[in-house]
Amino acid sequence: MSDPVNRRFLLRRRPVGRIRPDDFQLVREPVPVPGPGEAVVRTCYLSLDPTNRVWVEDVEQYMPPVQLGEVMRGAAIGQVVASNDPALPPGTIVNGLLGWQDYAVVGGSAGAMAQAIPAGFPAPLPALLGTLGLTGVTAYFGLLDVGKPQPGETVVVSAAAGATGSVVGQIARIHGCRVVGIAGGPVKCAWLRELGFDAAVDYKAPDWKAQLAAATPDGIDLSFENVGGEIMDEVMGRMKLHGRVVLCGMISGYNEGQPMRGRFDTVLMKRLRVEGFIVLDYLPRIMEAVMQLAQWMGDGRLRHRDTIVDGLERAPEALNMLFDGANIGKLVLRIAEPPLPVP
Amino acid sequence: MSDPVNRRFLLRRRPVGRIRPDDFQLVREPVPVPGPGEAVVRTCYLSLDPTNRVWVEDVEQYMPPVQLGEVMRGAAIGQVVASNDPALPPGTIVNGLLGWQDYAVVGGSAGAMAQAIPAGFPAPLPALLGTLGLTGVTAYFGLLDVGKPQPGETVVVSAAAGATGSVVGQIARIHGCRVVGIAGGPVKCAWLRELGFDAAVDYKAPDWKAQLAAATPDGIDLSFENVGGEIMDEVMGRMKLHGRVVLCGMISGYNEGQPMRGRFDTVLMKRLRVEGFIVLDYLPRIMEAVMQLAQWMGDGRLRHRDTIVDGLERAPEALNMLFDGANIGKLVLRIAEPPLPVP
Repeated sequence: MSDPVNRRFLLRRRPVGRIRPDDFQLVREPVPVPGPGEAVVRTCYLSLDPTNRVWVEDVEQYMPPVQLGEVMRGAAIGQVVASNDPALPPGTIVNGLLGWQDYAVVGGSAGAMAQAIPAGFPAPLPALLGTLGLTGVTAYFGLLDVGKPQPGETVVVSAAAGATGSVVGQIARIHGCRVVGIAGGPVKCAWLRELGFDAAVDYKAPDWKAQLAAATPDGIDLSFENVGGEIMDEVMGRMKLHGRVVLCGMISGYNEGQPMRGRFDTVLMKRLRVEGFIVLDYLPRIMEAVMQLAQWMGDGRLRHRDTIVDGLERAPEALNMLFDGANIGKLVLRIAEPPLPVP
Repeated sequence: MSDPVNRRFLLRRRPVGRIRPDDFQLVREPVPVPGPGEAVVRTCYLSLDPTNRVWVEDVEQYMPPVQLGEVMRGAAIGQVVASNDPALPPGTIVNGLLGWQDYAVVGGSAGAMAQAIPAGFPAPLPALLGTLGLTGVTAYFGLLDVGKPQPGETVVVSAAAGATGSVVGQIARIHGCRVVGIAGGPVKCAWLRELGFDAAVDYKAPDWKAQLAAATPDGIDLSFENVGGEIMDEVMGRMKLHGRVVLCGMISGYNEGQPMRGRFDTVLMKRLRVEGFIVLDYLPRIMEAVMQLAQWMGDGRLRHRDTIVDGLERAPEALNMLFDGANIGKLVLRIAEPPLPVP
């Protein structure tokens, strides 16, 4: 093993507002040794997601919050470096909740769950955290199962240049919808048009509300909401009667430390259906989504993009990039580059 | 005709906060004479509904707002007193948007729409504005079509002693649900228990949140929301995963003059389905609801109650009773008592 130390980010205190590096304690521990049935995995690519900010908040959420003193939770791709699990021999690439640390124990009675990735997987590994990973699966089921888009409908996606939004928009296009993406800045908007979005609204432009109105002259049938706040308000104001809102995230509120609200009067007057969606509920069907997403990727109909930041030590600051809109596509922290030499 | 004058409430200005009598102008005009194909109807029972407050606000809503200078819109039961419409001979009892006035012109090319009530209708006429009228139909479709209650589920109804809520709760009981009503004060709560509600929560009691928690130990499957605001927040906090919210009204916000908001974070984290509902969308199926409601009334499984206030001139102050929780069941303004002598 090249690195004899396991750096781990432990949650030191609950962040208030933006995450600060000293909300975590970076400890150095010996690299773990696998117990019976366990494997030890070197973390290679760590997924950074808006929901990570929710996990450190002591509020009601869809998983237990990360506890003080625990290693920060995070999805990641890693490589097995030592193993007492015959199903996970050294060298195996795995995907799981490995956490913000160099090495994770998986399997056995106490380790994290991890799934082996077949050798020769035909896409770059970071895509397994994005378009072919949980964000892609989120886009797939959130749009298709909850949103049920119909050909010809106008679909609006917020945070459209993000990992989830960019996939939502592309799938909606594949399904014959008119797709409008909302993103910050001309670079992101240009990328959305490259992806085939029918229109892109730059929410950093002073006239963004007029842009949205111009892009949705007949109103909005389906909103895939990732942002909340003022953007959600404006989108709600342009929903058609009986429109549907897939509520997938509200990143604009995650640093605010208070309940995130939205307009219920519009829901009532326009008889909207608003449905909360968390991909966890679809994990039993995950392969259905991944196979379809991979096929579209292979056909060139679905494009993946990521923003890669290097160095485990930069995890806290890199997470804030999501809230600054500093990433395009999937934000990934690279900790080590597989394939690593097998001991 | 016994009254030679047609008193009409015209909207003088848009109310700010609670309705004040001088938001309207009470004018006296001659009783209209029916034109070709028209009938003139004496207003007998005027329905007072929370949504009336929405109609006078210049905000996006499900019907055009009442315009300044127009007669105030209102549903009512009346009796035809003069007619050039062979289908509506004098003496006919009708139901329609007759407005806040002694006499309304119906039919023809410019008059209001009105529906004849068959002679010998087997329930008191005010029930046609409540349990067998739009509020009953609202309860019926909102609960059954949108909410889709299943036997054994816990259903919570706010404004449960109101015209809609009391019917919602009774229908949910008929469908085998556990029903919890939220209402203000011991008298209303006692009435809910008489109606067969499994529990009644008195939101005017200091411990109402604890009462709600005690009444919903396993959480809430289905919320039928009429109130909004703090009551809705508390109910949302007790929803089960994947619970459903029928958003039928938000009376607590109608006097506030600003967008009515609610917790979207709870919708997301609990993956709730929130659906706005306005009975207008179900008018083509209205008879299905009325027939079923009338059968349940006849069987004694559905009880109607109303609060009757006398005198057209009291319409503005009587409407405020809804916002004070001063009514039990359907609030009706009696202007004249049918049958009136047929000229």
